Amino acid sequence: MPYKAFTLPRGMRDIDQIETAKREWLFDKIARVAEKYGFQRVDPSPIEKLETLEAKSGPAIKDEIYCFKDKAGRDLGLRFDLTVGMTRMVASRRDLPQPIKLYAISGMWRYDEPQFARYRYFHQWDMEIYGSESTLADAETISASMDILEELGLHEYEVLINSRVLMDSFLASLKLNSEDQRMEALRIIDKVHKIPREKVVEEFKRLGVNSDCLERLLEFTSMKGPPEKILEELDSYEVQGHLMLKGLDALKSLVDDLKAYGKLSKCFLNMGVVRGIDYYDGIVFEAYDKGGEDVGAILGGGRYDKLGLIYGGTALPATGVAGGVERLMISLDRRGLFPKIDVSPKAYVTILNDQVKAQSIALAQLIRRRGVSCDLELKNRPLKKQLEYADSMGIPYTLILGPREMEKDAVRIRDMKTRRETLVPMRSLEEWIKKIRG
Amino acid sequence: MPYKAFTLPRGMRDIDQIETAKREWLFDKIARVAEKYGFQRVDPSPIEKLETLEAKSGPAIKDEIYCFKDKAGRDLGLRFDLTVGMTRMVASRRDLPQPIKLYAISGMWRYDEPQFARYRYFHQWDMEIYGSESTLADAETISASMDILEELGLHEYEVLINSRVLMDSFLASLKLNSEDQRMEALRIIDKVHKIPREKVVEEFKRLGVNSDCLERLLEFTSMKGPPEKILEELDSYEVQGHLMLKGLDALKSLVDDLKAYGKLSKCFLNMGVVRGIDYYDGIVFEAYDKGGEDVGAILGGGRYDKLGLIYGGTALPATGVAGGVERLMISLDRRGLFPKIDVSPKAYVTILNDQVKAQSIALAQLIRRRGVSCDLELKNRPLKKQLEYADSMGIPYTLILGPREMEKDAVRIRDMKTRRETLVPMRSLEEWIKKIRG
Repeated sequence: MPYKAFTLPRGMRDIDQIETAKREWLFDKIARVAEKYGFQRVDPSPIEKLETLEAKSGPAIKDEIYCFKDKAGRDLGLRFDLTVGMTRMVASRRDLPQPIKLYAISGMWRYDEPQFARYRYFHQWDMEIYGSESTLADAETISASMDILEELGLHEYEVLINSRVLMDSFLASLKLNSEDQRMEALRIIDKVHKIPREKVVEEFKRLGVNSDCLERLLEFTSMKGPPEKILEELDSYEVQGHLMLKGLDALKSLVDDLKAYGKLSKCFLNMGVVRGIDYYDGIVFEAYDKGGEDVGAILGGGRYDKLGLIYGGTALPATGVAGGVERLMISLDRRGLFPKIDVSPKAYVTILNDQVKAQSIALAQLIRRRGVSCDLELKNRPLKKQLEYADSMGIPYTLILGPREMEKDAVRIRDMKTRRETLVPMRSLEEWIKKIRG
Repeated sequence: MPYKAFTLPRGMRDIDQIETAKREWLFDKIARVAEKYGFQRVDPSPIEKLETLEAKSGPAIKDEIYCFKDKAGRDLGLRFDLTVGMTRMVASRRDLPQPIKLYAISGMWRYDEPQFARYRYFHQWDMEIYGSESTLADAETISASMDILEELGLHEYEVLINSRVLMDSFLASLKLNSEDQRMEALRIIDKVHKIPREKVVEEFKRLGVNSDCLERLLEFTSMKGPPEKILEELDSYEVQGHLMLKGLDALKSLVDDLKAYGKLSKCFLNMGVVRGIDYYDGIVFEAYDKGGEDVGAILGGGRYDKLGLIYGGTALPATGVAGGVERLMISLDRRGLFPKIDVSPKAYVTILNDQVKAQSIALAQLIRRRGVSCDLELKNRPLKKQLEYADSMGIPYTLILGPREMEKDAVRIRDMKTRRETLVPMRSLEEWIKKIRG
């Protein structure tokens, strides 16, 4: 039978040695910032009941996720984000003092068509605050998000902010009277920059938006700029109603808070930013790597008080932020922001023959016990092949313990770069280990 | 409509704040040991083609795992271990210098009946060495596994070792001529301690093992003890054949190596240890927490050269070890080996009113920038409620910045345990931060 290669399903991927090391570095940075802000890490279940996933996004979600029946005929689904799981977790933990600040960094699945910077298996970092209605909680997540980018060395970015309350009341003023119509309008606004102008016009027309209203809508959604400037424009905007004022007040208060956080200079109000996800119902925001906009938003979030209510049965105000790990890694890679990744052990101990095998093993163990990563010859190869292996693995030092070295109670240490060899007496070995441990 | 609580599917679980912190500690220890031995971390895809999973364990595996069709009708399955994924990864990476030493710590799923220390979603740490036929590679994984336990403070354990080659040739000597019969015999031997004696006898009878052979088999599989002693007994054992000698030689050579590693005192040869999994074909071993045997083996592994051949198309000798994270955590918990886990922030900044809000936010930001985890009042509560919150969160210090404190250019710091308050001048704040950062 001819050999058949085993490949991964479409859109799936392995994470290899180098990428894992990059992720560890990245996750550690994210975790440190989250913990400095008092977020506590959790990991919600990757498998949920389908009804839990549908509660957030409606039955249409089925088309976009991995779902299946288990052997008992129960409908299950793989999580498509971390927010649902965290919200479900918190909803069942009414014993916890509020606000509850949680974060997670983990994998998830979507049945999307694979494309640039999008896989069917991907990872997000996610910070959520449950139990505060205040815009201060929104400011806290925005500030923490920005600190993550800064901590990673990604200083050239913009945070674009809007209010769903403001948008919703503005759309209502355009005679989009039903919530469904307004939600559909938000979906169109969300993709204004991705589809041709005439298609935008056509879709709004189909929603029943007349030319006059459409013009006002397009004018409104193109408002963007520094917060103070846009707040002034919004203040003098003709259409005002109770809800619109409420949305405006929230934005003002958020801007004040972000100023206190020292974060206002990279924040912009943008009436075209609405976030595609339907459960947002307050402040929404997203951030772009300036010059790397083609990967899409590198983080996004907002308030979703209603979702907390759905999962919890009683009010659970909530606001949060999430960012795609794979996208972020593209931005960091392009800007050369990852440190030099070295997954090679520092040392390598040869085994010349069976007579020196036990001593060579003991030597490797000694080095490891001292906290230095050390590989050991496991293939019983000629010395030349052993040195080639150490070279190809990028291991900087090879330790050779042959009969001649043992006679002198010493070990020969080869610097693989310079190819210089030094005979180091056993009694000086601890010193050498200390030196290379750094 | 009455509220309906959203629960997890049967056998699934969330990992909460405290457990996540314990895991982080545990994973870090495991990672350090693995890296000291020169293993590099990867994370294979959680979703595989069903045929990939079946290649390892046959079509029967379908009953024990989560598998489903995707929207294009392709048969997929959730991974049930990390070995399959790593072996598939390595099989497609013939560019890597061998041996290839990989490790992973990640989650997986099995459609088991949930029971004590067994969930349908669980985690394993896993170290594998590809490309070496030598028992030295087996010794390397056993030694690294033991160092993980030692590093965790778990010193009271036993490693039980056997050879599948030895067992297989012994079973052949009992006239179990087909591989299927011998595999079935191994499965029975694997559960000898879990099922009643008469059932064992009955099952062997059904396999065609006569009373005389059965007695010899039960005698053979009850051989256990210190390596030197058992090797001596095996040497004088009457039935010997080419393969049995080969298995015996491998055990001898492994024992020599483990002695050189300084690991022999906790290792025992045990002819009753065969490991249930069918792909092992060389050295096998497992370790038990002494006194905590009810959780089952805390790690287990062995050589599986044939599996490498299946995935790779050409020879890929392989040996490895894996341990269940949830079981290990039970052992560590029982022995009190986890450090004190504290997920609370170190400090908490109140917000007394809108007049001091901006300064209070700035104060929290200052503390965070200095690397100290700090929470901030986000609910606009009366001071009394804010202090109650800090208390219930276990935060040791609350910083209060009211108009009076601001007038004196100072901050009031309350030690939440002693309830003593100190007025700290702003110019001395950096010192205080340094002190609590430790």
